[in-house]
Amino acid sequence: MNKNVHTFLGCDADYEQSRIVLFGAPFDSTASFRPGARFGCAAMRQESVGLETYSPYQDRDLCGAGVFDGGDLDLVFGSAQKALEQIRACTEEILRDGKLPVMMGGEHLVTLGAMEAVVKKYPEVRVIHLDAHADLRDAYMGEKLSHATVMRRIWELVGDGRICQLGIRSGEKAEFAFAGAHTELHPFTLEAAAQAAAKAGGSPVYLSIDLDVLDCGVFPGTGTPEAGGVTFRELLKALLHFAPLHIVGCDVVELAPMLDSSGASTATACKVLRELLLLLRH
Amino acid sequence: MNKNVHTFLGCDADYEQSRIVLFGAPFDSTASFRPGARFGCAAMRQESVGLETYSPYQDRDLCGAGVFDGGDLDLVFGSAQKALEQIRACTEEILRDGKLPVMMGGEHLVTLGAMEAVVKKYPEVRVIHLDAHADLRDAYMGEKLSHATVMRRIWELVGDGRICQLGIRSGEKAEFAFAGAHTELHPFTLEAAAQAAAKAGGSPVYLSIDLDVLDCGVFPGTGTPEAGGVTFRELLKALLHFAPLHIVGCDVVELAPMLDSSGASTATACKVLRELLLLLRH
Amino acid sequence: MNKNVHTFLGCDADYEQSRIVLFGAPFDSTASFRPGARFGCAAMRQESVGLETYSPYQDRDLCGAGVFDGGDLDLVFGSAQKALEQIRACTEEILRDGKLPVMMGGEHLVTLGAMEAVVKKYPEVRVIHLDAHADLRDAYMGEKLSHATVMRRIWELVGDGRICQLGIRSGEKAEFAFAGAHTELHPFTLEAAAQAAAKAGGSPVYLSIDLDVLDCGVFPGTGTPEAGGVTFRELLKALLHFAPLHIVGCDVVELAPMLDSSGASTATACKVLRELLLLLRH
Amino acid sequence: MNKNVHTFLGCDADYEQSRIVLFGAPFDSTASFRPGARFGCAAMRQESVGLETYSPYQDRDLCGAGVFDGGDLDLVFGSAQKALEQIRACTEEILRDGKLPVMMGGEHLVTLGAMEAVVKKYPEVRVIHLDAHADLRDAYMGEKLSHATVMRRIWELVGDGRICQLGIRSGEKAEFAFAGAHTELHPFTLEAAAQAAAKAGGSPVYLSIDLDVLDCGVFPGTGTPEAGGVTFRELLKALLHFAPLHIVGCDVVELAPMLDSSGASTATACKVLRELLLLLRH
Amino acid sequence: MNKNVHTFLGCDADYEQSRIVLFGAPFDSTASFRPGARFGCAAMRQESVGLETYSPYQDRDLCGAGVFDGGDLDLVFGSAQKALEQIRACTEEILRDGKLPVMMGGEHLVTLGAMEAVVKKYPEVRVIHLDAHADLRDAYMGEKLSHATVMRRIWELVGDGRICQLGIRSGEKAEFAFAGAHTELHPFTLEAAAQAAAKAGGSPVYLSIDLDVLDCGVFPGTGTPEAGGVTFRELLKALLHFAPLHIVGCDVVELAPMLDSSGASTATACKVLRELLLLLRH
Amino acid sequence: MNKNVHTFLGCDADYEQSRIVLFGAPFDSTASFRPGARFGCAAMRQESVGLETYSPYQDRDLCGAGVFDGGDLDLVFGSAQKALEQIRACTEEILRDGKLPVMMGGEHLVTLGAMEAVVKKYPEVRVIHLDAHADLRDAYMGEKLSHATVMRRIWELVGDGRICQLGIRSGEKAEFAFAGAHTELHPFTLEAAAQAAAKAGGSPVYLSIDLDVLDCGVFPGTGTPEAGGVTFRELLKALLHFAPLHIVGCDVVELAPMLDSSGASTATACKVLRELLLLLRH
Repeated sequence: MNKNVHTFLGCDADYEQSRIVLFGAPFDSTASFRPGARFGCAAMRQESVGLETYSPYQDRDLCGAGVFDGGDLDLVFGSAQKALEQIRACTEEILRDGKLPVMMGGEHLVTLGAMEAVVKKYPEVRVIHLDAHADLRDAYMGEKLSHATVMRRIWELVGDGRICQLGIRSGEKAEFAFAGAHTELHPFTLEAAAQAAAKAGGSPVYLSIDLDVLDCGVFPGTGTPEAGGVTFRELLKALLHFAPLHIVGCDVVELAPMLDSSGASTATACKVLRELLLLLRH
Repeated sequence: MNKNVHTFLGCDADYEQSRIVLFGAPFDSTASFRPGARFGCAAMRQESVGLETYSPYQDRDLCGAGVFDGGDLDLVFGSAQKALEQIRACTEEILRDGKLPVMMGGEHLVTLGAMEAVVKKYPEVRVIHLDAHADLRDAYMGEKLSHATVMRRIWELVGDGRICQLGIRSGEKAEFAFAGAHTELHPFTLEAAAQAAAKAGGSPVYLSIDLDVLDCGVFPGTGTPEAGGVTFRELLKALLHFAPLHIVGCDVVELAPMLDSSGASTATACKVLRELLLLLRH
Repeated sequence: MNKNVHTFLGCDADYEQSRIVLFGAPFDSTASFRPGARFGCAAMRQESVGLETYSPYQDRDLCGAGVFDGGDLDLVFGSAQKALEQIRACTEEILRDGKLPVMMGGEHLVTLGAMEAVVKKYPEVRVIHLDAHADLRDAYMGEKLSHATVMRRIWELVGDGRICQLGIRSGEKAEFAFAGAHTELHPFTLEAAAQAAAKAGGSPVYLSIDLDVLDCGVFPGTGTPEAGGVTFRELLKALLHFAPLHIVGCDVVELAPMLDSSGASTATACKVLRELLLLLRH
Repeated sequence: MNKNVHTFLGCDADYEQSRIVLFGAPFDSTASFRPGARFGCAAMRQESVGLETYSPYQDRDLCGAGVFDGGDLDLVFGSAQKALEQIRACTEEILRDGKLPVMMGGEHLVTLGAMEAVVKKYPEVRVIHLDAHADLRDAYMGEKLSHATVMRRIWELVGDGRICQLGIRSGEKAEFAFAGAHTELHPFTLEAAAQAAAKAGGSPVYLSIDLDVLDCGVFPGTGTPEAGGVTFRELLKALLHFAPLHIVGCDVVELAPMLDSSGASTATACKVLRELLLLLRH
Repeated sequence: MNKNVHTFLGCDADYEQSRIVLFGAPFDSTASFRPGARFGCAAMRQESVGLETYSPYQDRDLCGAGVFDGGDLDLVFGSAQKALEQIRACTEEILRDGKLPVMMGGEHLVTLGAMEAVVKKYPEVRVIHLDAHADLRDAYMGEKLSHATVMRRIWELVGDGRICQLGIRSGEKAEFAFAGAHTELHPFTLEAAAQAAAKAGGSPVYLSIDLDVLDCGVFPGTGTPEAGGVTFRELLKALLHFAPLHIVGCDVVELAPMLDSSGASTATACKVLRELLLLLRH
Repeated sequence: MNKNVHTFLGCDADYEQSRIVLFGAPFDSTASFRPGARFGCAAMRQESVGLETYSPYQDRDLCGAGVFDGGDLDLVFGSAQKALEQIRACTEEILRDGKLPVMMGGEHLVTLGAMEAVVKKYPEVRVIHLDAHADLRDAYMGEKLSHATVMRRIWELVGDGRICQLGIRSGEKAEFAFAGAHTELHPFTLEAAAQAAAKAGGSPVYLSIDLDVLDCGVFPGTGTPEAGGVTFRELLKALLHFAPLHIVGCDVVELAPMLDSSGASTATACKVLRELLLLLRH
């Protein structure tokens, strides 16, 4: 009998042979409204059984694509600082081994842990950020480490003009003002994706996809669903613009599976991740 | 310690200083199919905690916008007549004090109570009605007061050519025939919104938004969800056409929150109401 | 007192006077992921109470349209072979009586039972297949009779160039290759519907609608929801292209009502079936 | 092909040959909290497919038991008065034909309609009432016709000392005081059932079972679930005490199926009704 | 018009006139499994509309009982330390004003914040702890502040022999060993409640009720539901033993309302709180 | 980095060193009513993260207990015969290696596959069967292989007087008659467990636990929930009577996790399995 191994859709390569390393960061302690993103990565793995490894959109197959799925980190709940350190350490190990880290959230704050590792190796890294929310608050209810401040913290790491924000349709007035001065924010749609890709050129790029960039009709299974978002086809079209880029790390966050009992949000998240992984094979 | 006050998103002005008065009409006794719209107003208040007061669409903020939230009326269940009288009385008081009433439903029949008060003060009022359903039956299962007859009753108050119906995609054959003779009905989309606004000109306007005008993908949390509706962006675009109008009252009805356990419908309803309240500040 | 008869929306003609016969095939034993399509037909009947018989899209009414609803077959669970025989026998009876069979699923495998009867009477029949999935596998987990192989089995009945597949956005690489050689597959959208109709010309046509061709935002209540699908309006537009065709049988499958507790998917399925039945009156 | 007839579990006798007539009263307009009891009777019919006709508790079978299921009344929503008249008329017809009416609710107010008919034929009727709530308010929010006042209205029909209330564990102080003077109220448990049966002796008895007499653990699918109730076994034991009585009408009310998505409450309601119907065969 | 004030069931006294002060601690960041207890207090307030103020069990009424409901604290998510400080400060203020604090959770860790304040004023306080879980770990995944360690932290405050644990049916082997040496643990049932009350005598007592002490059949709406628990009647019986005690603070924690969509768990939590508040009036 | 291995609660022994082998049989194709038991085994594994390995009831710990979890079989859907063959082969392998098979269902039919292997090795095996349903039909809708016939098929393997059925409270009249002649059936409760254990003596015993033997209040997450069942404590007490027996195989079946969105049924199933595994260590 075989051991009982669960991996995301066809990601069954050995660590040594793999070029891409997938791992889960099941954390949502700073979620200020509906929690549950902690279950996102486990749900995606389980749901992926129902999905094909082949993408007719890209005419590629995940089978034999050299992706290792390392499972979920054992994160401490209630202490954002400790959880971020664990994520940073894991990302550093993957980068040190010359592989590409792909993280499944968890809430959006987990991106900060990964970025701390990425910035060390690639100080000139640029960030492409797809989201409904600007996430640029300096503090949220007095707390510096929060899903609502994550892009502000990342800006402190990478500096002005290095973060490109697409699809944003929610935030405080001050966040939009901050974006005007320090990031490149294209609100409401993903039509600026081609422009963002062109600007990134050959620089190392970290790609962070908050799934609530999707319309809440397509993707209700998330803590702060937002009307007025993009369709899956629009998201896919944007992602394909990023295929030629030098992507050095990425994540897919904010699936809260128990908020969508139909399972459709989880299925959609899996499909986004499949397309993303196939993209990275370029 | 402070008293335990719950208001919709930033609507914490004092009654005296406020220009706009929000209140809830938690009634759904005539719902012929899935009930639950009675919980709509309470759910919107509670959910609004997770929403920003600032709209990037209109670049305006509800903070300090002078809106008073008077809470929910204590309506009698099982007697549509009594509930409508309570709503009428409340609307009259608001109008008498020179303020603009904004009602959160509840089922669509509650609009009739508000309109009875509005017509008294503004006999020349025009109605702009966004909905999936024509609501023009003369009676429904023998009953004159019903969510399915509300626009017919309102037509009896305002007369021919004063009701403009947008987005309608469901009704009996007889309702469409009645609309042909007595109202202005633009089916399926909201593309006629600009035209409706132009026609209204400087007249007093009552704006009634049945949220099921949205596609059931975006807004499943309603008693009679209807495929083929508009997206949030299309609804928002239509609303912005109404910004210059002389709006003297409005409502947002038919959210049935427990039918969408993801919470996305409630979040969407809050966003519609936020945009509507910001619109009224023009 | 009257007997307790439940029929789909206005389908209360006598069998003898009816030209169209509706029946349910509540089977989902081969569903490989989330089951529940067995409840689809019963849910559509019950939900249809809340829907109008009149379609403003086609300006037609199901009242008096001569449709008989024969209820659900008593299918054996756990034996696909026996269930298919029951469906074939029922379809044969309807065809023998010179009527048009319309089947409510159930999972997609039920189409095979109906097609076996149709092919006997109309050996030259063409199939128009709307779906998210190609369903062209030769076997699924070693099993020849499966929702994932149904179009392959039907191809064995009708041969090359007789199946037109629209809206497909999921499948194994081998399925797309098979389609390239043996069927006509138009991926992702329904834009090729007019072309498909033109090609069918005056031939007898069987029309099979797997509701997951709809985007999972509009239609989450199905076993394998797929992002990137069509809207209801796009589906309706495609269907109207088929109105002039010589349709000799059709089905609407894969509604799994308990997966969408809001009821919106069931309501959408009813609306698709209403439009389909009105189409057949041409 | 056969007509599409749905009846409760084995209740397929012809009206003329039947001694017991089952019908549904899908009304819940006065529900002050969570509505949905309107769907109770339809859900019981559909769920009963999964239940055996044989009761090992009573060693009897519903097959061939001579019960006719007349389906659901088409009740007007929003007008309690009209709905009660329809229920009364139906009950009168059944009694006039010498049969025993068994009503499936709906909310508890529907009992009043049935009792108006029963009292006409049996002025000396006694009522046995199993419930979590006393339902003895004179008015509820100013309204005389309400689920919370139904036993008070029935007391006005039958007078002092004719209502026996069992299992009551909720009510206003005034209701308990009223009960002390005018009804016989045994709180919390059903241990007084034998005593109630003895007291009824050979008098005609109307038996009304509000399913929330069950503990909310066993029966969460009801509008006002109440902790501290009885188990199914305790309820069954109580019912068996009523087997020798001269029951002239009865009802089972307040199942709100969509509040318990597991379906267990509906299954339990069916089992209560099966045991009740078998009891009436004595 | 009146301000929009929401309080728990009849708890509408002014702060100055009240003897008991209710407040909510909506925190669940350390929940290691299913989160959602943050919504517990808000849900109880909203649900309490459907509950009577009168208890037939105690023959007392909350109306005019002098309870002030101060609403929910605005707690920081993601930082257990800061949240506990806010809870401690609030509890201190209430105790300083000579009133009795009653806290609605939130997860069980919130009890630690309240206890820090209580121990300052009543160093000799004893704790009576009703729960399914021992909560006696020294650390949980390396974290000292966690719902799984709360009783261990409280033991550090109060010392040996001062904590009485009732109903415990889950924990690590080491926790039961620790309890053997340092607390008084009565497993599985609440039969030792009378004994616990006797032992407490006239000492000041803090009473902490983790609602998962109830069987998961009665109370599924909690993060870690546990089979084998007590019924509501057993819990109530135990509570009544505590009526004569000198209770100086208490809490009701771990309702996670969205995990029980039927609403029955929330209704049960409200009933437990009502009985507790009435108990404190002795 | 480690491989991504998921096992049930502490069952992480190597196959060679283990005495007990756990595996899942995710099959439910013959479920005649609500399907979903196929997800039972996966849900139990995932949920077990929240459960302690230590049982205070038995004062034993699963840590180091020598249990290997081999994961789920890849069963064919739609063909009961093939699935049973796969289960039989797996069970044979485990028995051949001198280990004790423990199967997680899936629907109850899976027991037949395991029993075919067990009977080969232990022709004198006795069966102890805990269930709400007798499962003794000869055929169900013409089908011999069904969850409703499984005990009849097993009787054909083991013969008269070798099956002891406990807790049965549902079945056709003919099933109870058959039981009277061929099995030992103790209806309604588990009080006969001690008697059953005594009768088994030192014979090899296969223990099959259909979780719907639990009351539907405790365990709503199953396809055919039945009121009137036992509590968890009653089930545990019965199981402890079986501790001294010579158990050669066992199963826990019919958890359908998506029917109980609270997760309480899955948690309860895990606890039953933990206690069962600890029992086998005797």
